[in-house]
Amino acid sequence: MRTLALALAAQPAVAADAPQLEQNKKTVVEFYEKAINQKDFEAASKHLGSRYTQHNPNAADGPEGLKAFLGFLKEKFPASHSEIKRVLADGDYVILHVHAVREPGTRGSAIVDVFKLENGKIVEHWDVVQPMPEKSANSNGMF
Amino acid sequence: MRTLALALAAQPAVAADAPQLEQNKKTVVEFYEKAINQKDFEAASKHLGSRYTQHNPNAADGPEGLKAFLGFLKEKFPASHSEIKRVLADGDYVILHVHAVREPGTRGSAIVDVFKLENGKIVEHWDVVQPMPEKSANSNGMF
Repeated sequence: MRTLALALAAQPAVAADAPQLEQNKKTVVEFYEKAINQKDFEAASKHLGSRYTQHNPNAADGPEGLKAFLGFLKEKFPASHSEIKRVLADGDYVILHVHAVREPGTRGSAIVDVFKLENGKIVEHWDVVQPMPEKSANSNGMF
Repeated sequence: MRTLALALAAQPAVAADAPQLEQNKKTVVEFYEKAINQKDFEAASKHLGSRYTQHNPNAADGPEGLKAFLGFLKEKFPASHSEIKRVLADGDYVILHVHAVREPGTRGSAIVDVFKLENGKIVEHWDVVQPMPEKSANSNGMF
């Protein structure tokens, strides 16, 4: 029951109201488009708050880590494109379910990104990335 | 802008009310505990609806696919344990951010599970799984 107790404790303590949730979704979608697809750090960084705590183990912490990551994408995978399949929000969190393709024509990866916002600004990021397999045990696709 | 339009269209059309969101969270956490940690298909399957559409490429579709997967875990990884780090919900969706360890003492994987519910029952599942790396470019951990 330790897991159950922890899980319930991990719920957002205060629910955001519906307009705030919708605004947070719009902020994250625009940030994602500017950052990951347009690779435009200046435009994307307008949505960042006073910190950008990074949990992706391949990216350095902070806005500078994001800037370096976008520079890497621009140089190595200029045609990379991520399609957002699903946008969800709860409390201060916005979740994106994404199909990311670094090189056109390849299968790409399934990703879930989780962003935390404070006062309408993005302050923290987690993600989980899984390369799309060639074959599947079901015919439903990963999205 | 195609991505932005798609993303906003992918938002739940009708917001669930707060008590329903909380109930959905409890249902999914209990299902997860029974299924993934206790590996008890009979207890877990009480939370399934009229279908269980599976998007994990390693699992077969339907309740039978879940049963087979839990049998596999029980046989190959009887001590496997998943710790739920975060529970979020929006509309018909519940999202779990999980640290899964198949063999005690190993680093395990970061997972995001997404469940869809209809009438309080679980009917669909997606996930993204990433092995935890030995080293990270930041000191924040994956959770």
